Parts: sequence; structure tokens; C-alpha cells
Amino acid sequence: MAHLSAAVSIVTTDGPGGRCGVTASAVCSVTDTPPMLLVCLNRSSAMHDVFATNQMLCVNVLEGEHVELARHFSGMTGVPMSARFEWPIWDRGQYDLPVLRDALVSLQGQIVECKEAGSHSVMFIKLIDIKVREDAEALVYYGRQFHRVRCVREPAASTPAAPNS
Amino acid sequence: MAHLSAAVSIVTTDGPGGRCGVTASAVCSVTDTPPMLLVCLNRSSAMHDVFATNQMLCVNVLEGEHVELARHFSGMTGVPMSARFEWPIWDRGQYDLPVLRDALVSLQGQIVECKEAGSHSVMFIKLIDIKVREDAEALVYYGRQFHRVRCVREPAASTPAAPNS
Repeated sequence: MAHLSAAVSIVTTDGPGGRCGVTASAVCSVTDTPPMLLVCLNRSSAMHDVFATNQMLCVNVLEGEHVELARHFSGMTGVPMSARFEWPIWDRGQYDLPVLRDALVSLQGQIVECKEAGSHSVMFIKLIDIKVREDAEALVYYGRQFHRVRCVREPAASTPAAPNS
Repeated sequence: MAHLSAAVSIVTTDGPGGRCGVTASAVCSVTDTPPMLLVCLNRSSAMHDVFATNQMLCVNVLEGEHVELARHFSGMTGVPMSARFEWPIWDRGQYDLPVLRDALVSLQGQIVECKEAGSHSVMFIKLIDIKVREDAEALVYYGRQFHRVRCVREPAASTPAAPNS
């Protein structure tokens, strides 16, 4: 599965269940109409229940410069959760969700269904707010490494076709 | 959603419903134990029912040199489906599934559940065979463009932490 490249996000929540955020690469677009995506989270994580209780979350898709932030929110650097949210990088979004100010994309939404699949839950998110930062690099995880991917503006004629999803 | 970078795959099937393949970027790892992933397919596509009937499929994760193949299987080049499978790039896998010989990863499996979500179906795939090609570039779709991403072998100490998914 390490060979299935993917965008890197920090998924955040705040509410009655508490405030937390976790680095995740298992985020997938489902439909454009209505805008919906899914997030896979390990049920053995204490954070799983925080998300399930709050029912609201923000997928902060990271840009190229966010490698260290991805490491902090994967829990590998020892910085406590509360301290991570004291850094001046957060805005308050809908329903007080933590929104990363410089995210490549911020996708705020509501968990409309939570389906168990083996060790994980697949959470279906109906999006209520989308903010996009143009002309930034994407942060991609592939082969157990982070990579920075930049779009090059080309004439429309040479733009490849969209994958059919 | 175009800003959510993703691996590019050709998802193939063969069986009672027919043979087909489609370029897809909505493929997501779900669990390692058992190995399971999901694929989102548009229900309005005629191919959707071919996959649903056959119940078996192969996710051929593309490598950097497969840009043209991705375009053919997204239907943008006018090459008929039958002709695409006459190219000498296919092996026969489990249950006669078309397996792309030079894929970055070949993931063959069975559709164990198909869940409707808006215009799409989310197909949960229990994997039965996984083949990985080491040291190849990944093909990533980001910002409506294809990108090639190569792993650089580094000392273990500098390898970043795995995103918690």
C-alpha cells in the first residue's frame, strides 16, 4: 500500500468530544454533486471516537512546505496535542473547527455516515465549506517518503484528460 | 477536488459482464489486515455495471511512463476498448483478470461490498494478490495535470514518519 501515492492531510475536529488532529493519507474524493469525500481512520486510535462524537471535521490538505507539520500530527515528534493548536497557524472555521490557514485546500464538513471496514472506519463527509489556495505545491506521500509536486501552467491544448473517477 | 492529489490507476475486469478498464484516481487504501482498498466509480458509466457483475477487478497503479495509457483508458483518445486490450502489455491474472505487466503495483481482488454514495458507488475490494514493482516512478494526478514522482533512497534516519491513517 506504500506504493499507492496520496495527498497528505491533517484532519482536525473540535467539539463536545474534544479537539484533535491527525495526519492522514487515506482521504478520497467520492462525488462532486453533492461535494462528498471519505476519510479512513483507525478505530483503535483514541482520536477516532473524538471525531465520531463531534461529527464535524476539517480536512486540511497540506502543501509542500508542511512536511514538519505532517510529522507533528502523525505523533512522531512528541509535541502534545494541545501545544500543536497553540501555534499561530490556525483559523476558526464553521462550528469552531480548526482550519489550517495556509492549507492547499480546506474542506470542512459533516460526518454523514461511518462504516466499519476491518480495523478502520470509513467516514463519509458531506462538505459544507471549501477553500482553495491556488498555485501552491502539493505534499504527496509515496514509498514511505514525502514529495513536493508543483503544477506547471501549460497551454490548455496540452493539458491531459481528467481521469474518469 | 482537483487539488487533492492522487495516484492514477487503470481498474480492469473481465468475466460474465464483459471486459473493460477505466482510468481512476479515486482509489484509497482502507486496511492492511485484511488487505482492503476501495474504488469509487460513477454509476452513470456503462462500465460500472460490468464491474458490479464480474465482482472481480484489478487495480493497476500506473508508473510515470504510463501517461498515454492513462489517457487512452479515460476515453479521450478514441481507441475502442477491445483494441486497448490487444496491445501486448497485459498478462492474465487470477480469474483471468487483465493485469498490466509494468504496473507500479497490481492489486487483484474481489468486490465484497458496493455502497451507493450520491452519483457514485464505493466498491470495497478484498485483495487476493499484490505485485509490486520496486524503484519505479509514481504517476500522480494533481491540479488537472499528470506528474511523475520518484523515490530517493535515503538513510533510514532521515525517512519521515508514516502518516497515521
